Amino acid sequence: MRRSVFFISDGTGITAETLGRSLLAQFDHVVFDEQTIPYVDSSDKAWEAVRMIDTAACEQGRPIVIDTIVNSELRRIISHAHAFKLDVFEAFVGQLESELSTASSQAVGTSHSMDAQPDYAARIDAVHFALDNDDGARTRYYDKADLILIGVSRSGKTPTSLYMALQFGVHVANYPLTEDDFEETELPAALRPFKKKLFGLTIEPGRLAVIRRERKPDGRYASLTQCETEIRAARSIYVRENIPFIDSTHLSIEEISTRILAAIGIKRRPA
Amino acid sequence: MRRSVFFISDGTGITAETLGRSLLAQFDHVVFDEQTIPYVDSSDKAWEAVRMIDTAACEQGRPIVIDTIVNSELRRIISHAHAFKLDVFEAFVGQLESELSTASSQAVGTSHSMDAQPDYAARIDAVHFALDNDDGARTRYYDKADLILIGVSRSGKTPTSLYMALQFGVHVANYPLTEDDFEETELPAALRPFKKKLFGLTIEPGRLAVIRRERKPDGRYASLTQCETEIRAARSIYVRENIPFIDSTHLSIEEISTRILAAIGIKRRPA
Repeated sequence: MRRSVFFISDGTGITAETLGRSLLAQFDHVVFDEQTIPYVDSSDKAWEAVRMIDTAACEQGRPIVIDTIVNSELRRIISHAHAFKLDVFEAFVGQLESELSTASSQAVGTSHSMDAQPDYAARIDAVHFALDNDDGARTRYYDKADLILIGVSRSGKTPTSLYMALQFGVHVANYPLTEDDFEETELPAALRPFKKKLFGLTIEPGRLAVIRRERKPDGRYASLTQCETEIRAARSIYVRENIPFIDSTHLSIEEISTRILAAIGIKRRPA
Repeated sequence: MRRSVFFISDGTGITAETLGRSLLAQFDHVVFDEQTIPYVDSSDKAWEAVRMIDTAACEQGRPIVIDTIVNSELRRIISHAHAFKLDVFEAFVGQLESELSTASSQAVGTSHSMDAQPDYAARIDAVHFALDNDDGARTRYYDKADLILIGVSRSGKTPTSLYMALQFGVHVANYPLTEDDFEETELPAALRPFKKKLFGLTIEPGRLAVIRRERKPDGRYASLTQCETEIRAARSIYVRENIPFIDSTHLSIEEISTRILAAIGIKRRPA
């Protein structure tokens, strides 16, 4: 079974997509052909969206429309489309207005704008922090880190650091554990003063070998034996030093990030 | 006016946060004290959440709860809390079930898991592509880029590239325009073969000076005159070469990214 889906918004469309995909993930035996129409902020653009929906309706049965448009006039136009429509603001904003005993501002496209994000500059700052303190390149700013991720090469440190910075404004450094570190009986000197900020990543050796092979197909680096040895050594550091750690093998970056933040109790900053 | 808000989820909590902040952004005269409780996937954790909500209720009046828990038994527990509750799945999943004439899977925490993201590996791949092709460090993979962002130093290229990669799985390289490039009457040689992939960023000189000063407080780099000169030169390249561009001054990364993708018609991959 196939269905066309339209995520329609007067802003970035990120809220409509995020909510919509969450809901549609509950119907795993339906294939959804998704399309996002962002910045629908005029009646012309709303009518253009209606035309796109109606065209899809001719091809594949009634489309599903998930709509986060704030302006009720534009929503009214969208409702002319031949579609099954989930109207997010209609469903919830009225309820919130009565609960808060106040009218909503009906402001368009606000939720992912800079103005709606008091900590916006902090997120950008966090991205630069993550880049500057990526892969152990620099360790002298570790005192400013909220968190230092450690793990073997390609265990997921960099994408996780960047996601935490972009989404949650958390300052994350990351440090790769290498063979030099495994031979020591102590933590690497750069990490020792910041033991409380450390969080380890581990991963199944087979999965790591696949990831490394994409990067460097040949040589010891991507061999299963090497991956096994490194991961075993990294885990024994975590256990020896009592460092919390998480297995990234079956988790998305979103899951790794949110589980770590929940585990260490760092407050997420608004994204 | 202040209100406590709880975003509660059986997964990462990202959907609850994204939707919730969208809705709350419509009430700009209320201060919301936000808290996310992710991974509420057992009755113990649900009761623990109820306790947290009730504690907040004692301190600050009835909290608002935005709940994306799938399991109806856990939702029932949450509804014991003394709170005003927006129940996302109750509002929409039933409607979708009738529209699709099929039952939902009631699967917990699926929407931000790897399994729900067929293009998950593509997103990670895109992050590494963005890092490897950041700041003009390497130009030999430009043939593999979906898009090449150009602009002066600190105009927002790197955070935008990373966001597009993480959120949409788009392969974005970026190339800094410098004084060497401004003296030429042609595009930089590395960019010339890929003119159709170029997108320019511009920014108000005053804003750029502020951003640069945070990085390097002294010297010509952060001076207003220097910023003005560089931005004027970059803009004249965009105009001369007919390269589309966007002013990043008042836009968030989310807005810059989604506007660029909409302008050039690159399809977003699921995030």
